[in-house]
Amino acid sequence: MRLVDQRALPRRLRFVECGTVSELCDAIRSLVVRGAPALGVTGAFGVALAVRTERGVAAVRRAAARLREARPTAVNLAWGVDRALAAWEAGGSEAALVEAERIAAADVAANRALGAFGAELVPAGARVLTHCNAGALAAAGYGTALGVVRAAFEAGKAPTVWVDETRPVLQGARLTAWELDRLGIEATVIPDALAGSLMAAGRVDVVVVGADRIAANGDVANKVGTYPLAVLAREHDVPFYVAAPTSTIDLATPDAGAVVVEERPPEEVLRVGRERIAPAGARALNLAFDLTPGRLVTAVVTEQGVARRPYGRSLAALVRQAGA
Amino acid sequence: MRLVDQRALPRRLRFVECGTVSELCDAIRSLVVRGAPALGVTGAFGVALAVRTERGVAAVRRAAARLREARPTAVNLAWGVDRALAAWEAGGSEAALVEAERIAAADVAANRALGAFGAELVPAGARVLTHCNAGALAAAGYGTALGVVRAAFEAGKAPTVWVDETRPVLQGARLTAWELDRLGIEATVIPDALAGSLMAAGRVDVVVVGADRIAANGDVANKVGTYPLAVLAREHDVPFYVAAPTSTIDLATPDAGAVVVEERPPEEVLRVGRERIAPAGARALNLAFDLTPGRLVTAVVTEQGVARRPYGRSLAALVRQAGA
Repeated sequence: MRLVDQRALPRRLRFVECGTVSELCDAIRSLVVRGAPALGVTGAFGVALAVRTERGVAAVRRAAARLREARPTAVNLAWGVDRALAAWEAGGSEAALVEAERIAAADVAANRALGAFGAELVPAGARVLTHCNAGALAAAGYGTALGVVRAAFEAGKAPTVWVDETRPVLQGARLTAWELDRLGIEATVIPDALAGSLMAAGRVDVVVVGADRIAANGDVANKVGTYPLAVLAREHDVPFYVAAPTSTIDLATPDAGAVVVEERPPEEVLRVGRERIAPAGARALNLAFDLTPGRLVTAVVTEQGVARRPYGRSLAALVRQAGA
Repeated sequence: MRLVDQRALPRRLRFVECGTVSELCDAIRSLVVRGAPALGVTGAFGVALAVRTERGVAAVRRAAARLREARPTAVNLAWGVDRALAAWEAGGSEAALVEAERIAAADVAANRALGAFGAELVPAGARVLTHCNAGALAAAGYGTALGVVRAAFEAGKAPTVWVDETRPVLQGARLTAWELDRLGIEATVIPDALAGSLMAAGRVDVVVVGADRIAANGDVANKVGTYPLAVLAREHDVPFYVAAPTSTIDLATPDAGAVVVEERPPEEVLRVGRERIAPAGARALNLAFDLTPGRLVTAVVTEQGVARRPYGRSLAALVRQAGA
């Protein structure tokens, strides 16, 4: 498997080759590839890789289990692994690869569809605030939150974007700013802590973020920093939209209380590239995600349409529709 | 004048020498020295420097005006300049230096006094969250927000501290973590965007921050990121304390609407040390401060005592008391 190394962007467009599932698990853990929908596609291709490189049914299943656990918070990874594994068990050796390719194509189509639904929620000339990277890099293509921005742009609405830099890994400054620049959409990088006062100053019209898992009741797990944005958006009557394919909705997770939040190495906080930013021996806490209650979410935008409160009902209906 | 170069910390304890007011203004603008009370002391010593290096009354006054404008948001800088200038105009050439030394000594005493008042508000074993650096480095010594933590520590209350890293200039990770380490107080650096979910998880007992200017009605100008903390603290019933000497209270500023928020170079956002974090040509917005309405502030802790709402009355009373 050949992956864009997202750690090297925006400085270099570099690729990482993974010949085994172990190498792929390392690439997932070290954020060579990240983003919920992209992890779903990667998980499915990972099973196809396991089918070629592992010997015997039990070994493939063990490899699939390792893949599923490489990142615990994003539901799409396990979802993609399970889809490809089921295809392989039913259809034999080539079926996993066919299923992975089908998932990748469906993801791009889903993002375009959710982009179109989302664009209707974006006013002309809107100043959109986004967090982390929910763009083409985070998916098989097009993007979720950035898919909404992109569809609004393609519809002639001329949105501009406030890009939360998104510490500690800086997916906003590094990846979202890079994608928007390539698309020709005006973007301004801000420290995460500036978003609140921009809202207070009336300089944000909508917030659009992606999601790593949406619980049955509408609670959202997403990159750390999403929850404070949701609280601040409500404080200032700014609509707060979550854009994600229905594969991110996990009806088996009743609410945020059941979500495992991944704790990542403190070094990601204590260093920026070669620069150490804290004294030797300093401690840091690096929880990669946070949990936003559904009551703070104005709407969830999916490829099947837009869900609103009460989410218990509206999300289940969209998932049913996707399966139909 | 010899200043600790706060830009080089925590890697190196380095000094910058300023032989002229122009050099000192550059040092202030480039954050060699920062922190509201430290700027007050620096402004006063800057006038003493002007008295020695500038020729004629008009030139000293022009130098004082340049000093006052080097950073527009922190009121203490103008306050320190004006105090030393008035002393010089009344008392002649050595009076500015005497006044500057008096201000420095009074600042340390004020911080110790406000620390003692503030420590009473900190429960035993409290997990204190702070933002930016309001420690000894930000003052003539001891510190304001960190003065409160330090006094609680000296009183045996064993506080621990969540240190917001404080992007873009990282005063929390670089300076606050360094000071707390030297004091032997347990500290954990966090990305600014993690504070909200720590509060939601019940892992923060009090927030204590400093201030660059406190308006007559209790509105607070402080490092960007303070306002979202105040909103989140109220959301989670966490007390939100502002610790500052009465010299930071500006009764001539009626409310936050009258405060000039300094916009600093975008490069501070787009780079961390040698590391560029965004694509070439990316734009950034770097507003260095934000404004927190007094209604979100649980109490203002000063060397004269603790002010609570309504601030119009309580702050004026403390300022009168300080002048008495």
